[in-house]
Amino acid sequence: MTTLRDIGEDALIARLVSLVPQDGQPAAGPGDDCAVIDPGPGHDTLQLLKTDALVGRVHFLPDTPARAVGWKAAARVVSDFAAMGGKPERFLVTVVLCAETELIWVEDLYRGIGDCLRTFGAVLAGGETSSVPPGCVPVISIAATGSVRRQHLVLRSTAKAGHTLLVTGTLGGSGLTKHLHFTPRIRETSWLVTHFKPSAMMDLSDGLARDLPRLATASGCGFVLDESGLPLSPGCDIARALRDGEDFEMLFTLEPDRVAALLTAWPGVFPELPLTVIGRMVEAGAGDMLTGGWDHFRE
Amino acid sequence: MTTLRDIGEDALIARLVSLVPQDGQPAAGPGDDCAVIDPGPGHDTLQLLKTDALVGRVHFLPDTPARAVGWKAAARVVSDFAAMGGKPERFLVTVVLCAETELIWVEDLYRGIGDCLRTFGAVLAGGETSSVPPGCVPVISIAATGSVRRQHLVLRSTAKAGHTLLVTGTLGGSGLTKHLHFTPRIRETSWLVTHFKPSAMMDLSDGLARDLPRLATASGCGFVLDESGLPLSPGCDIARALRDGEDFEMLFTLEPDRVAALLTAWPGVFPELPLTVIGRMVEAGAGDMLTGGWDHFRE
Repeated sequence: MTTLRDIGEDALIARLVSLVPQDGQPAAGPGDDCAVIDPGPGHDTLQLLKTDALVGRVHFLPDTPARAVGWKAAARVVSDFAAMGGKPERFLVTVVLCAETELIWVEDLYRGIGDCLRTFGAVLAGGETSSVPPGCVPVISIAATGSVRRQHLVLRSTAKAGHTLLVTGTLGGSGLTKHLHFTPRIRETSWLVTHFKPSAMMDLSDGLARDLPRLATASGCGFVLDESGLPLSPGCDIARALRDGEDFEMLFTLEPDRVAALLTAWPGVFPELPLTVIGRMVEAGAGDMLTGGWDHFRE
Repeated sequence: MTTLRDIGEDALIARLVSLVPQDGQPAAGPGDDCAVIDPGPGHDTLQLLKTDALVGRVHFLPDTPARAVGWKAAARVVSDFAAMGGKPERFLVTVVLCAETELIWVEDLYRGIGDCLRTFGAVLAGGETSSVPPGCVPVISIAATGSVRRQHLVLRSTAKAGHTLLVTGTLGGSGLTKHLHFTPRIRETSWLVTHFKPSAMMDLSDGLARDLPRLATASGCGFVLDESGLPLSPGCDIARALRDGEDFEMLFTLEPDRVAALLTAWPGVFPELPLTVIGRMVEAGAGDMLTGGWDHFRE
């Protein structure tokens, strides 16, 4: 019998998606950081939909402070809205916990979610609680709506050969503390889509080695990566920058003739956050190959 | 230390909700079957948001056919849209499974979800997959958007003292097979909101004994229940009709002077589904008390 470990995460998703009816608009279905719902040509605002889950002993440990788990659970979703050029609006929070869980743990979890929602101007719209049998890990599943102005929408599937690849921040080493306390790059993407709109963008959740090929494949491109030029987090080497995952930085592409102006303007707006050219998009079938990064069913 | 078992599900939710920012519109936040998003007075259509979760060994067993689990997971959400007078639109499906899960199981799960989405005219907009450590039960978390015409919206908080209490179908015994194969009452509620709009409505998921007090409390009313007149499923007594849960029938209230006309019209439209008067709403503090029904953290 074939198991999920045999097939891996990306192939699994492709198979599952084919079994369920989908919207006629490609951007409205699975495949990007968020689903994009277009209410029609007369509307300037598109709706974004996203769901994400945090699982005990996978995304956090039993002794991780619950307030940090709550922040992380909500901030991961905010990061996905940022990756589309949008912003978060309404959250639905599902917690699946065993009955012996301490009340204070769950309250702190919600305080962390609340911290994140207040920081980014979002609200709780609903939720669900369910029990799991004793010994099972907690699961926090968050779905949310967001919005994006039509002219600011950035997909991951619209990079072109010749475009320059850039990344915010530094990569690798998130597992120590950053994965719990990261700031979704929504200020940065909000500025980018207004001043230097990327041709494609996604957030880095599973490591550049896994996420960059996803962006390239979605765009029908290849890529050339300057590994020696990657912005490394303190104490990290190139291998970790490629494969640690949970960076929650923005990976994006830009027409090459706009890159110099962006690199000049950026430090004046975001003096504390590096912005680095890490390569370029090329024709499909050409360029580099990358493997590794996080696969939920193969770790 | 206080645990979730000590406090119980309803008190837990009340505490958690107070820790997170919410929308100014009460109907847009937690408390009803769905959250209601009003885009403004110029719009005839309101958006509905819902999230729900199915957990292994809680909502289904290891040997439950996966396709039935998928149907149930999606149909529970459809039932909540029905309870607001609306219809489902876009689904986000999160599955949390251990890596040793057989691929065929997950594919059948999605086939079941697809069956339900096709039946009720909804589509998949996105999803998430994550692993759990070996030995942990599977979790299927579904969030969805829906819509309702402004004049068709029915809340659970708008029953009035003197209104008649009605229920569709029969109650009790769902755990044998009905909980896996039930038909969400969306045809019925769609007809009701057009012809005999209920003053309040909810779907029965945790048993009448738990859900009727929720409707009464939300509406600031009491209730009088005619227990001997409850429509019992085959083989069930009154106690089971009150407490088994997962009936997924509609509980609603109607102005008393319209009840006779409804009871006359109903069998012509829905000849196979009973509709029964089971009591009436009274002033807060008066009427009956009910306890029991399903509590996730106290079973």
